[in-house]
Amino acid sequence: MTALKHNAGSPQREVSVSETDQTKSSSTPLDQLAEILHDDMEATNATIIDRSKSHIPMISQIAEYLIAAGGKRIRPLLTIAAASLCGTTRGAAHIAAAVEFIHTATLLHDDVVDESAQRRGKPAANIVYGNKSTVLVGDFLFGRAFELMVESNDIRILDILARASRIISEGEVLQMALTGDLDITLDQYREVIDAKTAALFSAASQSGAICGGADEKTAHAMRDYGHHLGMAFQMIDDVMDYEGVAAKMGKESGDDFREGKLTLPVIIALKAADETERAFWSRTMKDHDQTPEDLATARKIIARHDAASAGRAIARDHAHQARHALESLPKSPMRGVLDELLDFVVSRNH
Amino acid sequence: MTALKHNAGSPQREVSVSETDQTKSSSTPLDQLAEILHDDMEATNATIIDRSKSHIPMISQIAEYLIAAGGKRIRPLLTIAAASLCGTTRGAAHIAAAVEFIHTATLLHDDVVDESAQRRGKPAANIVYGNKSTVLVGDFLFGRAFELMVESNDIRILDILARASRIISEGEVLQMALTGDLDITLDQYREVIDAKTAALFSAASQSGAICGGADEKTAHAMRDYGHHLGMAFQMIDDVMDYEGVAAKMGKESGDDFREGKLTLPVIIALKAADETERAFWSRTMKDHDQTPEDLATARKIIARHDAASAGRAIARDHAHQARHALESLPKSPMRGVLDELLDFVVSRNH
Repeated sequence: MTALKHNAGSPQREVSVSETDQTKSSSTPLDQLAEILHDDMEATNATIIDRSKSHIPMISQIAEYLIAAGGKRIRPLLTIAAASLCGTTRGAAHIAAAVEFIHTATLLHDDVVDESAQRRGKPAANIVYGNKSTVLVGDFLFGRAFELMVESNDIRILDILARASRIISEGEVLQMALTGDLDITLDQYREVIDAKTAALFSAASQSGAICGGADEKTAHAMRDYGHHLGMAFQMIDDVMDYEGVAAKMGKESGDDFREGKLTLPVIIALKAADETERAFWSRTMKDHDQTPEDLATARKIIARHDAASAGRAIARDHAHQARHALESLPKSPMRGVLDELLDFVVSRNH
Repeated sequence: MTALKHNAGSPQREVSVSETDQTKSSSTPLDQLAEILHDDMEATNATIIDRSKSHIPMISQIAEYLIAAGGKRIRPLLTIAAASLCGTTRGAAHIAAAVEFIHTATLLHDDVVDESAQRRGKPAANIVYGNKSTVLVGDFLFGRAFELMVESNDIRILDILARASRIISEGEVLQMALTGDLDITLDQYREVIDAKTAALFSAASQSGAICGGADEKTAHAMRDYGHHLGMAFQMIDDVMDYEGVAAKMGKESGDDFREGKLTLPVIIALKAADETERAFWSRTMKDHDQTPEDLATARKIIARHDAASAGRAIARDHAHQARHALESLPKSPMRGVLDELLDFVVSRNH
C-alpha cells in the first residue's frame, strides 16, 4: 500500500544516468533497455532465430513469418534486465528466448481461436497458413521453449515458466467464458488479465532475476514488479483499443469490441450506464448484434463517462505497486530504467 | 539387425509366469500390465484426475470429458512398466501422468486441426465445445505435464519429454505437408510416424527407465524398445484403418482415407498400382474428390495387393527390433510381459 502514497502526476523516483540520457535523446525506456542490454538481446534474437528453425520447412516458414514481424520484445527485455539488475546476464538469453517463444505460441493459438485478421501489423498466421499449421507451430514453439529451459538447467526457472504457461491458458479460457457477460466485475477482469498477461511478465522478470543470481527476497520483488507491470501494460492496451489506437500487438483497433470482450473501459462505463447505454452494451456485447457504426458509439459512451481516464488511473495504481517492489532493491542505473519503464507503459497512447 | 533373424510366426521369447497366466486367462499383455502395476496405475489415474482440474470450470469439464472417455493408457503403462523393470516405480506416477497429458493435449489439438468427428468413441471435443476451448485446454494440459515433470525434479526426464513434445508437432506438420502426396516414400512415412507416435512411446519408456534408476545403457535400450513398439503400434493402427476397424483411439474407420492421409497400406498398394488404380488414388487422395463408395474400392485395391499383410510384416520387423532391445536387459517376469506386448500389438485386429 506504500506505493499508493506516491502522487501519480509526479511519482517519486530516482533520477538515473540513463534518465538524463533519455531526456536528451527522447528515447523510450524500452529503447534504453535495448541499448544497454544490446549484446544480450543480440544473443537472445540469435537464439530465437536459430531455435525457430526446424527440418520441417513449413514450421520454419511460419515461425519466421511471425518472428520477423517483430513485436516489442518487452518480455525478453524484462528477463535480461532482471538478470542484469540482480548480478549477471550469463545464461539469460536462453531464458529470454524461451519466454518469447511461450508468448509467440500463445499469440498463434489466440489467432486461431479468435480468428484475428491482424497480428503484429500483418495478416494473422491462421489467415495465411490455415488453422491447422498455426496450432501445430504454436505447439512446436512451446516445445522449443521447454527445451531451452532444460538447457538452462535450473529447475526453479522451469517451475516458474511451466506454471505461467498453464496459467495463461486458464486466463484465455476464463476470458472466453466471460465474453459478452455484462455482469463481469472488476475483480473478474483483473483475474483474466493477471492470468493471460501479467503471469508471463511476472515469470519473465522472476526467472531473469533467478538466472542473475538473486536471493529469494529479490526474486520475489522482481516477480511482483513484473506482475504489476504486466497488469498496467494490459490495462493500457485495453484502454487504447477503445481509444482507436491500433497498437495492441499489431491487432486492429476495436477488436475487443467486435469480439465482445468486456475490458476495463467498458466495465467502468457499464457501472455508470443509464438504461439506454445498458441496452446498447447488451445488444452489441451480449447479443453480439453489431452495426458498423456501433464502435464509434461505444467510444462516445466511454468518453462520456471518462472511462479511459479512470482506467488509466487504475493502471497507474499497478505502476505504483511495481515501483514499490522495485524500491526494495539497491539503487542502480538499471533500476532507474525499470522505474521509468512504468511511467512509459502507463502513459503510452500509441 | 539381429532381430530380423527371429521367425515372425514363432518368435524366440522367454516363457514367463505371466505368459502362462495369460494362456489360462486369455487376458492381453495390457491387462496383465494393468494388473501387475495396479497400485501405480491407480496413483497415475488419481494424478491425472487431480491435475485435470482447474479453478476455471470449463477447463475441468473439457479435460474430464476427454479423460473419462479413457483410451488404452498404453503410454503411462509403458512408463510405469519401464520404471518397474529398472528397479522402482517410486515417482513414476507423476511421469506417467505427464506422458498421458502430453498425449491427450496432442489429441485435442489434432481434433481441432483435422475436424475429427469421433475421438475415443465419443464426438470429438471440438465438435462439442468448439475449436477455441479445445486448443486452450490442450495448452492447459501441456502446462500441467511440465508442472508434473518439474515436480519429479529430474532434468533428464524434462529433457526427454520436452524434446518429444516438440518432435510430435513436427511430425503432425510433416504429415500435413505430405497429405495427398502420391509420391510419399516409405522412408517419409516412417519419419512421420516416428515423430508423431514413436517419439512419445520412446520417451515414455526411456523416462520411466530413468525414473526407475536405470543406467545409461539400460535407459537407451528402453528408449529403443519404446521407439520400435511405437512404430509397430502406429503401423498396425494405419493398417486397421483400411481394414474397417474403428479401433484407432475411437476414431471412425476410414478416417485416413477421407482425410487424404497416405499411410502404410496405401503406400504399398501404390507401389504395385496399375494405371487405373493410380488414377483412383490420384482422384481420391490427391484431388480429394471422393464419393461414398470410394472407401470400399480403396479397401478392395489394398486387399488385391495384399498390402495389409505386407504392412503387418513391416510392423513385425519393428517388433523384432524392440525385442532385440529388450533382450539386453536381465530376464524377469516384467520383461516377459513387455515381450508379449510386442506380439499383442502387431497381431491386434480390433
